[in-house]
Amino acid sequence: MEKQFLGKQSISFKEPVYIQGFASVVGKKEGEGPLGGYFDRVEEDDKFGKKTWEEAESAMQKETAGRAIEKAGLKPENVRMIFAGDLLAQSIASSFGIEELDRPLYGLFGACSTMGEALSLASMMVAGGYGEQVLAVTSSHFATAEKEFRFPMGYGNQRPLSASWTVTGSGACVVGTKKQKIKITGVTTGKITDYGLKDSQNMGACMAPAACSTIFQHLLDFGRKPQDYDKIITGDLGYVGQQILLDMMEQQGYELGEVHGDCGIWIYDRETQDTHSGGSGCGCSASVLTAYILPKIASGEWKRILFVPTGALMSKVSFYEGSSVPGIAQAVVLEYEDEEKK
Amino acid sequence: MEKQFLGKQSISFKEPVYIQGFASVVGKKEGEGPLGGYFDRVEEDDKFGKKTWEEAESAMQKETAGRAIEKAGLKPENVRMIFAGDLLAQSIASSFGIEELDRPLYGLFGACSTMGEALSLASMMVAGGYGEQVLAVTSSHFATAEKEFRFPMGYGNQRPLSASWTVTGSGACVVGTKKQKIKITGVTTGKITDYGLKDSQNMGACMAPAACSTIFQHLLDFGRKPQDYDKIITGDLGYVGQQILLDMMEQQGYELGEVHGDCGIWIYDRETQDTHSGGSGCGCSASVLTAYILPKIASGEWKRILFVPTGALMSKVSFYEGSSVPGIAQAVVLEYEDEEKK
Repeated sequence: MEKQFLGKQSISFKEPVYIQGFASVVGKKEGEGPLGGYFDRVEEDDKFGKKTWEEAESAMQKETAGRAIEKAGLKPENVRMIFAGDLLAQSIASSFGIEELDRPLYGLFGACSTMGEALSLASMMVAGGYGEQVLAVTSSHFATAEKEFRFPMGYGNQRPLSASWTVTGSGACVVGTKKQKIKITGVTTGKITDYGLKDSQNMGACMAPAACSTIFQHLLDFGRKPQDYDKIITGDLGYVGQQILLDMMEQQGYELGEVHGDCGIWIYDRETQDTHSGGSGCGCSASVLTAYILPKIASGEWKRILFVPTGALMSKVSFYEGSSVPGIAQAVVLEYEDEEKK
Repeated sequence: MEKQFLGKQSISFKEPVYIQGFASVVGKKEGEGPLGGYFDRVEEDDKFGKKTWEEAESAMQKETAGRAIEKAGLKPENVRMIFAGDLLAQSIASSFGIEELDRPLYGLFGACSTMGEALSLASMMVAGGYGEQVLAVTSSHFATAEKEFRFPMGYGNQRPLSASWTVTGSGACVVGTKKQKIKITGVTTGKITDYGLKDSQNMGACMAPAACSTIFQHLLDFGRKPQDYDKIITGDLGYVGQQILLDMMEQQGYELGEVHGDCGIWIYDRETQDTHSGGSGCGCSASVLTAYILPKIASGEWKRILFVPTGALMSKVSFYEGSSVPGIAQAVVLEYEDEEKK
C-alpha cells in the first residue's frame, strides 16, 4: 500500500474524509458562558435525571452520540465502530454511556486530549477503508472529575488562579466518506512531553510543552507556517498555559499571536464565571469543537483549522506519589470543502 | 479506497501484516507457573528496583517494549507510533512506562482486553499505510491492581474461588510490513456486552458473554467454524468463565471443546499456586501471547489462532454504586506464514 505518512509524526490523507454529523450537550454553567447559544442542548439538571454523577455523565455522552448520528442522517447500526473516552478511572463514563448503542468499540485514554485522539483514529479508520462511518465521542463532568481527582467538594478547598474548571459537556462527530462541508485532511500524533512539573492545579503549564511539541512538529511535517491556518486551537491550556505556549513557540521561531485560540478560554467568561484559568476536561475541547468551531468551518468563515486538544497524564495516585504531570497533544487538520473549486 | 471490511464487525486485510518482534517480562509468581520457562525475563523483585508499585509496573512495561523493539532488530526511533494501555486509573503505568521511548502515542483503555485492542489498532495502522512499524504494549501488576480495585492487602480479605489473580506481567509486539513467520490477517472488533452481572470477584462470568459475542460474530463474518483454528484463545476467563463460554457457544451451535484455550488458565498451576479461577489483567494475555502463543505459531506447530482478550469494564466507583460489570472482547487472527507455499 502506498505510504500515507508524512514527516516524523504526521499523516496526510490522500483522499480526505468528512465530518458527516456532530453534536454537543453541556451543563448549566457552560450554557451561561459566552458560547451558550451554540450548543445543541444545555441541560439545567447537572444530574441529567440520574442518581449518580457518573450515570449523569454517561447519559450526557450517550445523548451526544445519538444526536451526532441523527444529525448525520444515520442510525446507530450505520456506525461501523466507535472511539470513545473520558477522564474517569477505567473510563466508566464511556463504557456505560455508549453501551446501549451496541456498536463495535475501541476505548481510549488521552486525558483532555482524548477528542483529538478519537478524531485522529476515526479519520484514519475511514481513510484506511475500515468503515464508511466511524464515531468519535468524549465527555467530562465537573462533579465526576472533582470526585475523581480532588477533595470532596464539601471541603470547599480553595482553587488557585492557575486551576481550571472541568467542563460538564460532551461532543461527538461522525466521520465518513461522504463529501460534506468539513473535511479532515491530516493528523499529527503527539508524544508524551514531560518538563517535570508537578502541580496538578496548574495543568495549563504542564500541558503547554506538549502543545508546543505537537504544533511545532506539525508545521515541520506539513511544511506550513502558523498563518496557513485561520486558527490553531488548543484544548484547555487556559490563560496560564496559553502564555507559556506562545512564549515557547516564539523561542522556536514561530509567532502564533492572534492565530492561537483555546477552547478552555472561550467556554467561560473570565470576569463573571469564577473559573480562573479556564475550562478543561475531555468535554471542553469536544463541546467547543462541535458547537463553535465546526459550524464556522462549515460556513466557510474559517478555511483551515488545526485542532489540538491537550491532556495532562496524571492520576491521584501518581500525584500523591510525587510524580510529574506529563502532557500530550493530538492534532487534527480540519478544512472547509469548497466544492466550487473542484 | 477499496473496502477492507467484512461482515458486521470484522476486517480482513488484503495484504497481511507481520509480527516483527515480541517480548514478555513477568514477576516471580508467574515465573514459578507452568509457563515460567517461556518468558524473556522473570524478575524476582516485584518492585523492579523502584520505590512504588506503579513505578515498578511502568519499569516493567518500558523494559518489555524495549526488548520487543530490540528483538525486531529496530531502534525506538524506527517505531512510527505506539498503542499502549493498562488497568490503572488514567493509565499511569503506560504514561510513565513508555514516556522515555519518545514516540508518538495513542493511549487505550479496554481493561484486560487491551492487548487485543492494541494489536488490532496496530495492525490496522500498518495495513492502512500509516507506518512501517507500530508497537502494541500492555501491562498489569498484582500489587497496583489490588490497590486500584480492592481492599488494602494488609486486610487479608478472603478471595472467593471465582476470583482471579492479577498477573504481574507485560507483553509487547512490533507489527510491521516486513514478511516474518507470524502474520496478522484480520480482526473482529468487540461490542460492550452486559448481562447485568455485578460480581467483580467473578469477572470470568462477567466477560464470558462478551467473548461469546465476539467469537460468534467472528465466525459468521469470516465464514469459518471453530475447527478452522488450531486454538481460539481467550484472555482471562479462567475456569469459571471458560465453562460459561463453552456452554454459551454450544447454545449458538458451536462446539469449541478442545479448540478453546485461556491465558488465565495456562499461566498458573491450579493445584499449587492458589490463584483460584486463574490469572487476569492486561498483562496476562499479553505475556502469554508473547511468551507461549507466538513462538508456537512461528515454529509452525499452530497454523491459525484466534486471540481474544476479554475485559471487564468496571471501576471501584461503578462497583460501589451498584452498577453491572459489562464485558468486551477484541479478536485478532494470527497465522503461520508458510513461505514455501508462496
